[in-house]
Amino acid sequence: MTRTSVAPTSLLEFARESDPVLRALLEEKVSAAAKLPVDLTPAFGALRDYVLRGGKRLRGALCLLGCAAGGGARHEAFTAAIGLELFHAYLLVHDDFMDRDEERRGGPTLHVSFARPEGVTRAAKTVSDVSVATASAHAAGSLAILFGSLCQAWALEQILAAPVAPPRALAASRLVARALAEVTLGQALDVAAPLAHSLARDAALRIEELKTGSYTFALPLELGALLAGASDATRGALANYALPLGKAFQIADDLLGTFGAPEQTGKSAGNDLREGKRTLLVLHALEFATPADRALLLSGLGKHDLDEAGIEALRGVLRRSGAEEFARAESERLCAQAEAALESKSIPTAVGAELRAIARYSVRRAS
Amino acid sequence: MTRTSVAPTSLLEFARESDPVLRALLEEKVSAAAKLPVDLTPAFGALRDYVLRGGKRLRGALCLLGCAAGGGARHEAFTAAIGLELFHAYLLVHDDFMDRDEERRGGPTLHVSFARPEGVTRAAKTVSDVSVATASAHAAGSLAILFGSLCQAWALEQILAAPVAPPRALAASRLVARALAEVTLGQALDVAAPLAHSLARDAALRIEELKTGSYTFALPLELGALLAGASDATRGALANYALPLGKAFQIADDLLGTFGAPEQTGKSAGNDLREGKRTLLVLHALEFATPADRALLLSGLGKHDLDEAGIEALRGVLRRSGAEEFARAESERLCAQAEAALESKSIPTAVGAELRAIARYSVRRAS
Repeated sequence: MTRTSVAPTSLLEFARESDPVLRALLEEKVSAAAKLPVDLTPAFGALRDYVLRGGKRLRGALCLLGCAAGGGARHEAFTAAIGLELFHAYLLVHDDFMDRDEERRGGPTLHVSFARPEGVTRAAKTVSDVSVATASAHAAGSLAILFGSLCQAWALEQILAAPVAPPRALAASRLVARALAEVTLGQALDVAAPLAHSLARDAALRIEELKTGSYTFALPLELGALLAGASDATRGALANYALPLGKAFQIADDLLGTFGAPEQTGKSAGNDLREGKRTLLVLHALEFATPADRALLLSGLGKHDLDEAGIEALRGVLRRSGAEEFARAESERLCAQAEAALESKSIPTAVGAELRAIARYSVRRAS
Repeated sequence: MTRTSVAPTSLLEFARESDPVLRALLEEKVSAAAKLPVDLTPAFGALRDYVLRGGKRLRGALCLLGCAAGGGARHEAFTAAIGLELFHAYLLVHDDFMDRDEERRGGPTLHVSFARPEGVTRAAKTVSDVSVATASAHAAGSLAILFGSLCQAWALEQILAAPVAPPRALAASRLVARALAEVTLGQALDVAAPLAHSLARDAALRIEELKTGSYTFALPLELGALLAGASDATRGALANYALPLGKAFQIADDLLGTFGAPEQTGKSAGNDLREGKRTLLVLHALEFATPADRALLLSGLGKHDLDEAGIEALRGVLRRSGAEEFARAESERLCAQAEAALESKSIPTAVGAELRAIARYSVRRAS
């Protein structure tokens, strides 16, 4: 099947509509930052660039579609959709720090920006002997955590501001709080996993699901549906679509992280292997590779200084063991399962068509 | 005036009532942790101990009093009061990591616990060659951040679960989201302040206010009042009490952090000086000390390896410059201002009496 970079209409539309809103919100923060007791203009500027520098706007678009599926109006879910994009930025910023990633969406991660001279605050030009200290790695990391958390607080403000009846806004916010606990736990498991000696395949997949899958599809759709006051049948059909697709999306992400083109994904390929991530790809290969290939994979996995030739050797193992093929087939199978859920009479036809396009894009995207 | 360790009745009552609730909530998490794909029992156990190991339970008690001031029933604000204690734990855990503090409430901070062997997960006893890896400092720090964030998610769940009419629960939650943004920004300013060359006294006080003052008094009281549907007059009177008292509390904290007895405060005295914190004490001394004393203070401030004799020399500067005396007088003045706000007819007499006791305890406490 062909890789694609053309996003479905609903994603493009939401990106067009949300970008100026996100930009205005972040510009306001940048302006306010100059008036703070310590001038944080550079730090807020880096956060603005990080949030606006792309991203698929998938979660916000899904929130609007969940609302439409439940018969709600677009504006009822719009602030929540913006909130989900900020929520996503929060998770990425913290994840970047924890994984020590230096690049995201084709630019520096926040803790990397903040460690640069004048990355946080500006030199006071009026005092002659002033030089702004460069943040230590620890201070830069702490500030990245805090700027990520700021995005989270703004996300909550947006979600709580949904212009719907209070019981609906409240139910939606409770869902977000639950999801917040779940995704945080998933991330904790992900960080803790290398401390455990071995990890069964099911356990590894469950961690990925907690960490990424559930909040990418299930949360946005259910959030939009709750804001619209959708019926149980509609919410059930959306969940039946979201759960397999969340897994398929994660597998596609793993494939891109190992076989993707860095100029399209915005992050260096092979990093998952350098970090020793127990992806479905790796777990499958460990099970089915020849003993020699298995030893080769284990010797390279988790080596932070692995060069491109070393990465390519590991990719060879993933190919020969059938792991790549298996992962592609598995993501297609899950995608088909998600699409089948859209046959439900409780999903309006137009919404179903968009969700089908998103399902296919999610597993066949190039970035 | 005399130091006191005896807390006001409302604090003792709330501690008695909330401790079993917090314990049950955390025990449930510990039990669930054993069933996760990676057994996180030790990590959740450390979190439970951290949360339950004391604390004044000031914020929760104030939330209940805010509710009582507005004519609400105790149970209407109780989940939110529990939520504020979890929210406080979240901020402390992140703060400990950022300040690299090793001790809190007389025990290890989370990032310190997590860096110990088997501090996060347990060795699988069934596999003979298994040894559980010790978390690197970076992984231990990341996990501390995540376990702090878990407390925050649970805090939101508790606050959103308040058994009041949805519009009230929603208004209360919006307040919390705003406060979350404010306190996060305060913490970011605190971390960034050493990067700026100099910091004016007003700027330093403003940062402390953002970071601690507002969420300790103003937030809990206003939260309780909103849940009760309090009148504007009552909310105004509570704010007039909370604002000066937040500042007074912070000054008392600074005094304890420098002159307090570690066996009572649960953290080592002098750490504020070792960290180079720009407290009111330090800022006053820098302004009014003799040139020699000023030089002595600047030479020691921010030295992480300062021994007890070095700390005592700096304390001498704070005493001789009049900074200690000034800080004590200032906290008393602000406390009196807070007490005056309680004369308002919009505050029921019994609630006013409790808030008065809390004001005095807050500035004269020994821990």
